[in-house]
Amino acid sequence: MNPVHCITQKRDGHALDADALTALIDAYTRGDVPDYQMSAFLMAAFLQGMNEAETAALTDAMLHSGVVLDLSDTPGTKVDKHSTGGVGDKVSLLLAPIVAACGVPVPMISGRGLGHSGGTLDKLESIPGFRTDLTVHEYQAQLTDLGLVMIGQTDEIAPADRKLYALRDVTGTVECIPFIASSIMSKKLAEGIDALVLDVKCGRGAFMKTEPDARRLAETLVGIGERFGKRTVAWMTRMDVPLGRAVGNWPEVEESIRGLRGAEIPDLMEVTLALAGEMLHLGGVADSPEAGQQQAQEAVDSGAAFDVLTDLVEAQGGDVSVLHAPDTRPDVPEPIDVVAPDDAEGAVQTIDALAIGYAAVDLGAGRRTKEDTVDPTAGHSLAKKPGEAVAPGEVLARLYTHRTDDVDRIAEDVRAAFTITDEASVVPPMCIDRYTADGWQKL
Amino acid sequence: MNPVHCITQKRDGHALDADALTALIDAYTRGDVPDYQMSAFLMAAFLQGMNEAETAALTDAMLHSGVVLDLSDTPGTKVDKHSTGGVGDKVSLLLAPIVAACGVPVPMISGRGLGHSGGTLDKLESIPGFRTDLTVHEYQAQLTDLGLVMIGQTDEIAPADRKLYALRDVTGTVECIPFIASSIMSKKLAEGIDALVLDVKCGRGAFMKTEPDARRLAETLVGIGERFGKRTVAWMTRMDVPLGRAVGNWPEVEESIRGLRGAEIPDLMEVTLALAGEMLHLGGVADSPEAGQQQAQEAVDSGAAFDVLTDLVEAQGGDVSVLHAPDTRPDVPEPIDVVAPDDAEGAVQTIDALAIGYAAVDLGAGRRTKEDTVDPTAGHSLAKKPGEAVAPGEVLARLYTHRTDDVDRIAEDVRAAFTITDEASVVPPMCIDRYTADGWQKL
Repeated sequence: MNPVHCITQKRDGHALDADALTALIDAYTRGDVPDYQMSAFLMAAFLQGMNEAETAALTDAMLHSGVVLDLSDTPGTKVDKHSTGGVGDKVSLLLAPIVAACGVPVPMISGRGLGHSGGTLDKLESIPGFRTDLTVHEYQAQLTDLGLVMIGQTDEIAPADRKLYALRDVTGTVECIPFIASSIMSKKLAEGIDALVLDVKCGRGAFMKTEPDARRLAETLVGIGERFGKRTVAWMTRMDVPLGRAVGNWPEVEESIRGLRGAEIPDLMEVTLALAGEMLHLGGVADSPEAGQQQAQEAVDSGAAFDVLTDLVEAQGGDVSVLHAPDTRPDVPEPIDVVAPDDAEGAVQTIDALAIGYAAVDLGAGRRTKEDTVDPTAGHSLAKKPGEAVAPGEVLARLYTHRTDDVDRIAEDVRAAFTITDEASVVPPMCIDRYTADGWQKL
Repeated sequence: MNPVHCITQKRDGHALDADALTALIDAYTRGDVPDYQMSAFLMAAFLQGMNEAETAALTDAMLHSGVVLDLSDTPGTKVDKHSTGGVGDKVSLLLAPIVAACGVPVPMISGRGLGHSGGTLDKLESIPGFRTDLTVHEYQAQLTDLGLVMIGQTDEIAPADRKLYALRDVTGTVECIPFIASSIMSKKLAEGIDALVLDVKCGRGAFMKTEPDARRLAETLVGIGERFGKRTVAWMTRMDVPLGRAVGNWPEVEESIRGLRGAEIPDLMEVTLALAGEMLHLGGVADSPEAGQQQAQEAVDSGAAFDVLTDLVEAQGGDVSVLHAPDTRPDVPEPIDVVAPDDAEGAVQTIDALAIGYAAVDLGAGRRTKEDTVDPTAGHSLAKKPGEAVAPGEVLARLYTHRTDDVDRIAEDVRAAFTITDEASVVPPMCIDRYTADGWQKL
């Protein structure tokens, strides 16, 4: 394998065969191909594209750069969910206990927050004591015992992806569907799952801003999953406005607890129940996604899902008391109100999820550089959502932060993220479309 | 300056302003921007292109990354020539003494062989004792005394170019007109010249294979020169067949000596006199390029040009005796004949310059890697040129090499480089076209 030949082939618009791509990725992972050659290759592939076979070969090479877990000793059809990332997207925190409560094992390996979007791992770690660094043995044992385990990516899983991801981040080669899809799928395929549900977010607060891009990503993800023999279904869901009202790590855990205890959070529960229903169908305990959705609703209503969350937190060393009494969590700062301006009159039309996401990072809930630490209690809660009436001086949002120096500017950014007019406000359904190996199915 | 922003701007097809490009190149030269970011930028620029202003800004940044020599103390209009590289291209060895003999100072900084094409520096160093590493002080003093100095690029001249060149070589970003043009011009502008003649080679044995590419390169080079206030003229010349009969370092010096002593070498002398005439016109000693060409011919006929070559070699420590008696140069191996095949009948139609160039590298005349050393006497001489009749068993070429292990294969490659048929053979003129700030002038 000659790396310059791979680069010039891709530069000139040719497809690389699986052997060449595998050899390139293997040599890069070993350190035999330097970063400066890989970044030239990445940019060439970004601009010239990669076809389906190349994307699958890239995924395969990254998947086999590390260990591939074998969960065949754990009974049942193991199903996971992955979201492409959004603002206020705490769906995993509700959905995983719901699905496990219905009898489908969920082995979930999650990531940290990235840019303006949060990460499940950071959210779980905002529960005092919660451990996300289980060993492979602990991971498998807990899945068998409890039907649910939620950890972070270990060093052994897809090391090529980790190395490539870090390089893409600093070389302007992030927003590329073949790279995004192979990165997601190499990690998910390494978990030992049997089936996968994907939540492909689309809109202002998502990495895919437009429906055509989101559709292409969904098709690519499902195509890879099916090539690797895993039943894979993608839902395309809206991410123009933050999901639910809470944004930030602990604020989102707190809202998830309320959701699992039956609080009415329409957009969040719509997405959660739809994806959970799909997982229950793929997991073989529901005859259809719709029947699965019904079972998922029952697991919330009965309290079974909340009980599984409690068991999960206990099993992974977290403080269960804060689940039962979220108000008792220490270190939560006093909220700072953001109020509607004097000319605000009418209803909230929309809330810019991207601006809200970046404001959460500024409050301390995310990282500006890889070295940043996260403030688990920082974030905000939206007092108003689209469709709700607003009068001047009414509270729009509450900010939680330990950084007080920049809070006035952040409050202004949050205020500016709200569009308030006297027009009638229409709140569309969250779920746009569903894609399987059989094609798109309009919802 | 945010390097990722520069990369994504270029990736998305936008032009960068001069400040951003200068800051990027400066930071790269200092080591503040790592290779892996620069290679992503280079690939983005390769595929998205750079406009005239960007190419000029890139040249300016590379030029000012090192010292810019000031030759204003040396009287006269200093004129140099640069060739984009070919096979058997020993024009500089003849032209520089001719032009200096006619009273125009020539400060020439040359490069080494690259790929299949030779380099003036390697050729000069095949003269025993010849020094190409003069100090800046020696360089200027010799130019004033002799009107001619020929050295290699020093570490102080355009260090950004050297660093970028090495990176391009290993990242598939060599064949890109803005990069090629800015690399050439940054070095030439650093020499302290007043005017420049460019020999843009076009054809199988050149880096620009097609006329449209060679035209674009010529236009880009002249555009940059004129932007920097230097009168610049480009000649587009043919490089399908090796120039002259000798290929290799000492073989080419030997042929150059014969050319300066009046031997008939039509294609070589056509190019040499055309470019020399242009330089004499730019240097202000001839009223027109045509008149300059006449003066150049006289400098050859009178022996004045050969005398200047002798002075140059003496001034730079070389052994003058081998100029007067080339046969006495030590270490020249016995020639190995390559003969015409049994079915050869007719005349040579063409000789593949690229194949001949690579065969010369294999004989030891060039480098396969940067660390290779060059055999100064290796190479070949073509016994037959296009238009000449050939019978079976006649000698086509003579190989000179100290590497005997692979010589049969090389001989076969050289034989295969000749196209011999019984059709009438037409040898076109070497000079195709001439480009100045006023546009193209068909010859």
